[in-house]
Amino acid sequence: MAQQDLRVGLIGYGFMGRTHSNAFRSVNNFFDLDRRPVLAAVCARNEERANAFAAQWGYESVETDWRALIARDDIDLIDIASPNDTHHDIAIAAAEAGKMVMCEKPLGRNAAESGAMVDAVEKAGVANMVWYNYRRVPAVTLAKQLIDEGKLGRIFHYRAKFLQDWTISADLPQGGEGLWRLDVDVAGSGVTGDLLAHCIDTAMWLNGGIDSVSGLTETFVKERMHNLTGQVQKVGIDDASLFLAKFANGSLATFEATRYARGHKALYTLEINGEHASIFWDLHDLHRLEYFDHRDEGQTRGWRSVHITDGDHPYMDHWWVPGLQIGYEHTFIHQAADFIEGLSSGTPAAPTFRDALATDLVTDAVLRSAQSGQWENATG
Amino acid sequence: MAQQDLRVGLIGYGFMGRTHSNAFRSVNNFFDLDRRPVLAAVCARNEERANAFAAQWGYESVETDWRALIARDDIDLIDIASPNDTHHDIAIAAAEAGKMVMCEKPLGRNAAESGAMVDAVEKAGVANMVWYNYRRVPAVTLAKQLIDEGKLGRIFHYRAKFLQDWTISADLPQGGEGLWRLDVDVAGSGVTGDLLAHCIDTAMWLNGGIDSVSGLTETFVKERMHNLTGQVQKVGIDDASLFLAKFANGSLATFEATRYARGHKALYTLEINGEHASIFWDLHDLHRLEYFDHRDEGQTRGWRSVHITDGDHPYMDHWWVPGLQIGYEHTFIHQAADFIEGLSSGTPAAPTFRDALATDLVTDAVLRSAQSGQWENATG
Amino acid sequence: MAQQDLRVGLIGYGFMGRTHSNAFRSVNNFFDLDRRPVLAAVCARNEERANAFAAQWGYESVETDWRALIARDDIDLIDIASPNDTHHDIAIAAAEAGKMVMCEKPLGRNAAESGAMVDAVEKAGVANMVWYNYRRVPAVTLAKQLIDEGKLGRIFHYRAKFLQDWTISADLPQGGEGLWRLDVDVAGSGVTGDLLAHCIDTAMWLNGGIDSVSGLTETFVKERMHNLTGQVQKVGIDDASLFLAKFANGSLATFEATRYARGHKALYTLEINGEHASIFWDLHDLHRLEYFDHRDEGQTRGWRSVHITDGDHPYMDHWWVPGLQIGYEHTFIHQAADFIEGLSSGTPAAPTFRDALATDLVTDAVLRSAQSGQWENATG
Amino acid sequence: MAQQDLRVGLIGYGFMGRTHSNAFRSVNNFFDLDRRPVLAAVCARNEERANAFAAQWGYESVETDWRALIARDDIDLIDIASPNDTHHDIAIAAAEAGKMVMCEKPLGRNAAESGAMVDAVEKAGVANMVWYNYRRVPAVTLAKQLIDEGKLGRIFHYRAKFLQDWTISADLPQGGEGLWRLDVDVAGSGVTGDLLAHCIDTAMWLNGGIDSVSGLTETFVKERMHNLTGQVQKVGIDDASLFLAKFANGSLATFEATRYARGHKALYTLEINGEHASIFWDLHDLHRLEYFDHRDEGQTRGWRSVHITDGDHPYMDHWWVPGLQIGYEHTFIHQAADFIEGLSSGTPAAPTFRDALATDLVTDAVLRSAQSGQWENATG
Repeated sequence: MAQQDLRVGLIGYGFMGRTHSNAFRSVNNFFDLDRRPVLAAVCARNEERANAFAAQWGYESVETDWRALIARDDIDLIDIASPNDTHHDIAIAAAEAGKMVMCEKPLGRNAAESGAMVDAVEKAGVANMVWYNYRRVPAVTLAKQLIDEGKLGRIFHYRAKFLQDWTISADLPQGGEGLWRLDVDVAGSGVTGDLLAHCIDTAMWLNGGIDSVSGLTETFVKERMHNLTGQVQKVGIDDASLFLAKFANGSLATFEATRYARGHKALYTLEINGEHASIFWDLHDLHRLEYFDHRDEGQTRGWRSVHITDGDHPYMDHWWVPGLQIGYEHTFIHQAADFIEGLSSGTPAAPTFRDALATDLVTDAVLRSAQSGQWENATG
Repeated sequence: MAQQDLRVGLIGYGFMGRTHSNAFRSVNNFFDLDRRPVLAAVCARNEERANAFAAQWGYESVETDWRALIARDDIDLIDIASPNDTHHDIAIAAAEAGKMVMCEKPLGRNAAESGAMVDAVEKAGVANMVWYNYRRVPAVTLAKQLIDEGKLGRIFHYRAKFLQDWTISADLPQGGEGLWRLDVDVAGSGVTGDLLAHCIDTAMWLNGGIDSVSGLTETFVKERMHNLTGQVQKVGIDDASLFLAKFANGSLATFEATRYARGHKALYTLEINGEHASIFWDLHDLHRLEYFDHRDEGQTRGWRSVHITDGDHPYMDHWWVPGLQIGYEHTFIHQAADFIEGLSSGTPAAPTFRDALATDLVTDAVLRSAQSGQWENATG
Repeated sequence: MAQQDLRVGLIGYGFMGRTHSNAFRSVNNFFDLDRRPVLAAVCARNEERANAFAAQWGYESVETDWRALIARDDIDLIDIASPNDTHHDIAIAAAEAGKMVMCEKPLGRNAAESGAMVDAVEKAGVANMVWYNYRRVPAVTLAKQLIDEGKLGRIFHYRAKFLQDWTISADLPQGGEGLWRLDVDVAGSGVTGDLLAHCIDTAMWLNGGIDSVSGLTETFVKERMHNLTGQVQKVGIDDASLFLAKFANGSLATFEATRYARGHKALYTLEINGEHASIFWDLHDLHRLEYFDHRDEGQTRGWRSVHITDGDHPYMDHWWVPGLQIGYEHTFIHQAADFIEGLSSGTPAAPTFRDALATDLVTDAVLRSAQSGQWENATG
Repeated sequence: MAQQDLRVGLIGYGFMGRTHSNAFRSVNNFFDLDRRPVLAAVCARNEERANAFAAQWGYESVETDWRALIARDDIDLIDIASPNDTHHDIAIAAAEAGKMVMCEKPLGRNAAESGAMVDAVEKAGVANMVWYNYRRVPAVTLAKQLIDEGKLGRIFHYRAKFLQDWTISADLPQGGEGLWRLDVDVAGSGVTGDLLAHCIDTAMWLNGGIDSVSGLTETFVKERMHNLTGQVQKVGIDDASLFLAKFANGSLATFEATRYARGHKALYTLEINGEHASIFWDLHDLHRLEYFDHRDEGQTRGWRSVHITDGDHPYMDHWWVPGLQIGYEHTFIHQAADFIEGLSSGTPAAPTFRDALATDLVTDAVLRSAQSGQWENATG
């Protein structure tokens, strides 16, 4: 296939800079697309590290000022993988410059920032997407298909958790390189924006809108050394965030995220119970979907552990042979493929900036409810 | 061992009448005790069924009026296994007659009833206990021991669910024989008193008191045929009940019970995350405890699936050999054994009526919060 | 129901004496039968222990000589739960005295002994049964039903293991009370007769006869202190026994038993792969059956974990409610119930002595093959 | 790092051509190496497909004759990913031309072919390796480390299975593109060389040499349409292959491979039981290692499910963050990295051609034993 170049300017070289680079670099090996991402430039303030990153991944050039990157004529797409407090300004500037924009989640640090970003991309009419990558886990995509086909029937319950345990030690500092997620000024919030946002994005994709929430947050370790100031400072983020929710479709939900659940590294789990069938999935075994169908014959009815590696499972015809599992980074490759297909087809792939704003409205409501002790409206 | 008889008068011949009868009948085969329960009488209004039950289990006599049973001199212990709306009157009368009293859970239909029952047994000074049997699942008892030994350290999170799916069909009637749990007048509440009460009893035993809750309840099927009236009537019970909780020790919790979770028959699960270690247990595989200890060597650290069948596991030296699991009814046998040992030792086995009252204070607060939309105090 | 007494004389008070006693004592509480076992007498050489056992279980009388027990007119059924080297003589004498005979497995120490026992019961025309209890695990019984219904189609593979780890320490002595299974003179063989026999009995019940085998045995610890002689002696039993097998139906199999598999207490597992469906079961989670049906819709096809606790599962309508599991000893209760129903119906419940002889022919062939290094015929 | 090019000439564009290409193309993104593979040429007889493959993966050039490829001066390394019947001639020619040689497994169609290949690379003194990729699953590599550290102690048992179900249908043809594994002339053997070879390679790496074997093979479907001849022909391969084995260290083993195990796509499992600890792993959840350590405290001793995603797990510091799993193709990337590191360090990475020959000696012995009905020596 004759392919058109899609010249990418990446901002940020951290964990997400790596997953995005891998996605752009590999997507054409596995998907037949009419555009081929080119790693045109990586941008970061630390030039030495940026150069090393460029060498590692094969970026053609390096920038140290994101405004310079946006100003370049040879860049088609700005991909934002820098800390949360940079998303708003970069995205708006990129949109105004007519660039396509992809942005790591959460979109902004709060719904106000996100709303402005939505306005900017929609006004500019540029392609845009937020990297809520878990929608593209094949098992989760299959869950979406099964729900849309009506396999579950009326939905009664949804529950999601995102459990980690990496900040239990009180000796862990906050802030700076690699730890900006613990610095409320940079991150905006704690696990609410970092982890619950993933759970909420998937939940609303699978089960529709959330009407209202009752939230509870806690900061277990109240003070930590700050890496940038060298001072022991008050911790501003939430360490744990839980909420009850009522969905528009009448179903009830519990959501929980924490970095204090010993034994869980990145245990994102979701379960949905319908009239006829139920689904369970977890990120620690992301290549499996647990499915229960009450319409199965009684004596042999049970939860089915579906190994999502067959050719008729979403995305899996692009990979290996049945039985051979894929991993985490593949979700980004799928998202890159869908984004490019959206450019070709004219139907933008989700989640767009606008889709992601809905998630931020819920996280804002959770934080508001945790303060007010009241149920809060989550629809903005 | 020379054993003294402990003459039992059972009220009720339903599901719980069977589990209690089995416990009393078998306990001395497996535990060395200085009293031996004697199945002296079973009491129920339906004489024919009571006779059949007596024949099946070997009860010496039958009564059809519980007041007559309580009046008998040859009965040491009244065991209440009849529907919830009978607990209050029977327990108080039995206590006033100087009988020991064992009562199925929940104690009363609400904390007001339960409080009066507590007053009665304490005033009378009679031995008393509530059948919160899940404390005596060996895996759960082991969890208690590990927590008390400090293996988990500071506790951050508790979560419990009790999921069933047997009332999803709108064609299921409410009320009457076998279905009184769906009749609010008899049951007092729906899953809150039936299922959440179990979760709360275990939770407070393992993790201490609950200070406050934010609750949410729902009745998915609003009207059902009532078996006693023959009319389609409003359903008064809650079909689902969820709440967030703050424990006195600063840990946070989610609780959920429902009869609308397709694929789950009696899935009571609990998880507790501490600073050093975490525990998970579920009723569908009750003979296993999942245990994670962060102090294990890093490379081989993982969740341990402990098969609770060894002689050094709680209660298990009374059963078979390592590897051979026990089942549900054994929890009642353990409770009967502990009750009798409590009589001998003078240290009453828990949960007493007073212990069970604490649970009813929480369930009342959950229902109150579901009405008020506010956090409610759960300590009475 | 008017029930006729079935007066049981039990020989042996060890582990199996307890499981059989419990079965006879409980069976009528859960099954409607026209006979009721009466614990008439227990027989053992050690009178003090026999008396204690009788008190624990409620036996009416005690004998110290099994010949005296057999001579009693008030005994209907002789139940043999004593070590393997006693089976042959007792069973033949009991049959000749016209008693019904139930015998712990393996039937004899070898096929020659077993053959004589079969002749005796058949000549006497007395009811007889061998306690291969795992046939009555509800999940295993369901497997049998599914196979018989043709759900699996043509069978290609069978595999079974029975893994334990309790004899790894070289300090463990052999012989005497509680350790006779390590004494070849008493036991006849090691894991071949103790563990493989279970696997073979189930396998031939589910999958038909075994034509030939290639076996391999090993004794890892060559010498152990003998408790009866006080001497360090050569160990005569096999510690591990493995074999390949060809079934009459053309399917291939691996079998393995060992007491040197660290981490496994009583892990009996079986798997059977058919053209259309496969089944897996293990004793450590005996209340589950894993079932895979290739005819399920492709996208949601997976191994179903069937929680064998519903009323339409074998035997389970006699127990509690869906979701509540039973344990190990229930298999003996089921077997006692089936034995009694066999008496009533005139169709003897399996496995009879003759059925059990077929298993001993296979274990003999395995041991023979382990010596010869050749494939050996297993059909006698 | 200044990197030297390593110019790769790949032969074959099938499933393995893709995994190898991906490995060469990605390895430097994740590993710091002093050589960088360059996709210099792909070679295949079908020019159109070879061109498409080259475009998909970015190969610089295409050859249709492997002899021409080997003759090129600009190729450093010949990578053989073509069907088994081509391995022998290509490898020897490549070695004679002084090229490094990597070869898909099995090395030859039998030990005679493999022996000649070993001689060729050793005589030429060229770097060589066989793609037994499962050694580089991080969980399997960790197993090797734990065994080498003595964590398991004396080994008693090894068991391995490789179960698939893709050839059950009798309508599946044999031979030709995508199905050459069913054609005995091309493949050499059936599941013995295709699947058991993997099991044997890992087993001998983990547990040392295999002394002797007793094998059993079967061809369930005796005739299939041949895609190349258009005729229904006798099937020459084995559909299932099982064997018992004695290791040099005294441990006993069962091995089994089949394509007739309904419900299993690529279920490679291995278990090893030692005096102190045991290990279990399976390919369907390749990112987990099950580990049991008897030295754990008794009450909480259990099988640990280790999620192999932490930075101190083999290879995992090159990937994402704890909790995020990798997939199948990563094993090839690891192998490519180790091969290149072996070039730099001068210590060749295993398995070399010589290592792989040992596996072929075992597979030959299995096939010989299946014919002879005798135990056969497996050490050549």
